[in-house]
Amino acid sequence: MRYDIAIIGSGPAGLAAAVNAKIRNKNIILFGSEDISQKLIKAPSIDNYLGISNISGLDLKNKFKNHIEDMGIKITQKRINNVYSMGEYFTLVSGNDTYESTTVILATGIEYGKMLKGEEEFLGKGVGYCATCDAMLYRNKKVAIIGYNNEAEEEANFLSEIASNVYYVPMYKLENKLNNNINIIDDRPVEIKGEKLVNKLVLKKSELDIEGIFIIKDSVSPKYMVPGLEVEGSHIKSDKNMSTNIEGLYVAGDCAGKPYQYLKSAGQGQTAVSSAISHLDKQKIKKSVLVDTY
Amino acid sequence: MRYDIAIIGSGPAGLAAAVNAKIRNKNIILFGSEDISQKLIKAPSIDNYLGISNISGLDLKNKFKNHIEDMGIKITQKRINNVYSMGEYFTLVSGNDTYESTTVILATGIEYGKMLKGEEEFLGKGVGYCATCDAMLYRNKKVAIIGYNNEAEEEANFLSEIASNVYYVPMYKLENKLNNNINIIDDRPVEIKGEKLVNKLVLKKSELDIEGIFIIKDSVSPKYMVPGLEVEGSHIKSDKNMSTNIEGLYVAGDCAGKPYQYLKSAGQGQTAVSSAISHLDKQKIKKSVLVDTY
Repeated sequence: MRYDIAIIGSGPAGLAAAVNAKIRNKNIILFGSEDISQKLIKAPSIDNYLGISNISGLDLKNKFKNHIEDMGIKITQKRINNVYSMGEYFTLVSGNDTYESTTVILATGIEYGKMLKGEEEFLGKGVGYCATCDAMLYRNKKVAIIGYNNEAEEEANFLSEIASNVYYVPMYKLENKLNNNINIIDDRPVEIKGEKLVNKLVLKKSELDIEGIFIIKDSVSPKYMVPGLEVEGSHIKSDKNMSTNIEGLYVAGDCAGKPYQYLKSAGQGQTAVSSAISHLDKQKIKKSVLVDTY
Repeated sequence: MRYDIAIIGSGPAGLAAAVNAKIRNKNIILFGSEDISQKLIKAPSIDNYLGISNISGLDLKNKFKNHIEDMGIKITQKRINNVYSMGEYFTLVSGNDTYESTTVILATGIEYGKMLKGEEEFLGKGVGYCATCDAMLYRNKKVAIIGYNNEAEEEANFLSEIASNVYYVPMYKLENKLNNNINIIDDRPVEIKGEKLVNKLVLKKSELDIEGIFIIKDSVSPKYMVPGLEVEGSHIKSDKNMSTNIEGLYVAGDCAGKPYQYLKSAGQGQTAVSSAISHLDKQKIKKSVLVDTY
C-alpha cells in the first residue's frame, strides 16, 4: 500500500501535520514515539503556546496526545533510517521494513547530538546507523554499538548472533536486556579511527579493535537519512512553503531552523501539509492526463 | 516613547507575536480590536489547532483573549493607516495620532475586500483611507465615505464639520450615530470616476458628484499602508524568517500568504518576534559601538 503523506517525527510539527492531513482526508502514516517528544515532556512550563497559557510540558503533551487520539491518528513506533526518492514516490526504510508514500514530511527535531570524531569520515566505511540493516556485512567480525536508547539493545542482540564480538557502549542508563555474549563497555567514545575502513574505536579509558561500528540515536541526521537533501548547517534547507530541494519532500519544526518553539513548529507542520497536498493534486492531474492520452 | 515592537493586527498571528514578545520582555504595543478577529469568531468549528480539538471559533477566541489578559497584554483599539520607515525606527499613523517603534510586525489578515474600479487609479487623487487625516483638504467640498464598519461613522461625523456635503455609503448594518447633515446613501458603489482628480462615484442605482472619497475598511492593504513594501499578488513578500524587504519590518499570518490557518498564523507570529528581537539586538550593538567610538 502507498500512503499519501508519511510524517517522520511525533513532536508538535509532526502531530500538527498529522491532524491537518487527517482533516484533509489523506491516507497518512505517522512515525514517532508514544511519548510524543522527550523535549516537550521535560519542559517545566510553557507560556507562549497561544490559547493554552502556563502549562507544563507534560500536560501540553497530553493535550496533543488527546487531540490525535480524538481524531483516530495512530503513531507507528518505528525509527526511519532512510528515505529514498523513487521519482513518483518515496521508499522509507526502518530496519528490515519498508514503507511507500507519495510525499514525506520530515519533522525529526534537531537533537542529533554532536557527531563523533571520525564518524562522518568513515560513514559507509564501517560506520552505520542501522545494525539490523547491515548486520550481514559483519559476519564473524568484531563490531561496536554506541547506543543512545534502549532500542539499541535489540539491535545489539540481533548483531550478536552474527558477529564474532559485539561491544556495547551505552550512552544512557542501561536497562540491560542484552545477550550474555555482548561485552558492555562502561566508557565514553572519543574517536573512530581507521585507514580505508574503520579499525578502531578510541574511548576515554580504553581502545577497541573493531571492523564496524553502529551508532543508534533517536533520530538520524536528515542529511544522512535522505540522500541528496540540501542542508544549511544543522538545518534542512527549505522555502516559506516548507518545500525542500527534493520534490514531494517537506520539512517542519526544529529541523527546519530556528526559533525552536512549539507553536512555530506546529504551524509549519500545517503549512507542510498544505504544500504536500498541492503536490498530490498535481500528481493526480498528471496521471489523469496520462490515462487520457492512452 | 518608542516601543521595541509594534504589532498591527489582533488575529492569531498578532496575538502569538504579542505573547512571545512579552515573554521576551520587550516593550510592545498591539493594535487591533477587542473582538480579536471577526473571521475567528465566525468559524463554526476548528479541529486543526493542535492541542485544542473540536472548538468553536468563539471559544477559541476566548481562550486567546484569556491568554493575553493573563499576561497583561492590552489591545490598543486604533486602526493604523500608515507605517513609515524612518531609518532606525518606524512612525505609525492612526488618524491624528502617531506612534514610534523600532520594529513593526504586520499581522493585518487578508480581508481587504476587492478594490473598487477606479480606487487604485485615483488613490491620492481624491481617494483616501483616513478621513480624519485628510479632512482639511476637503473644506467646503463634496465628499463620500464608503464605510465597512461603525468606526467609519465617527470619521464621517468629523468630516461633516468641514466638508460642505458628506455622503455616507454603509457596507454593513448601519448603527447610525451619524450627524443629521450627513446623507445616507442606501446603494452599492460600482466605480470611482474622474479626470485628473476624482469627480464622481457611480453606484448601482445612482451617481454622486464628489471631489473626494474615503474608503474606511477594517484594514488597509499593506501595499498602501507601508510605502515601498514589496508584495506578491495580495500577499506581503517575506522570507522564512518573516522578514520583508524593509529592514525591521516583519509579517505574520494570512497577509504573509497561504495556507490561511490559525495555527500556521500563530507560529509565524512567534517567528516574526524572534526575527524582530535579532534586529533589536543588532541595533543595540550598533549603538554601543557608536558610543564606544566617541
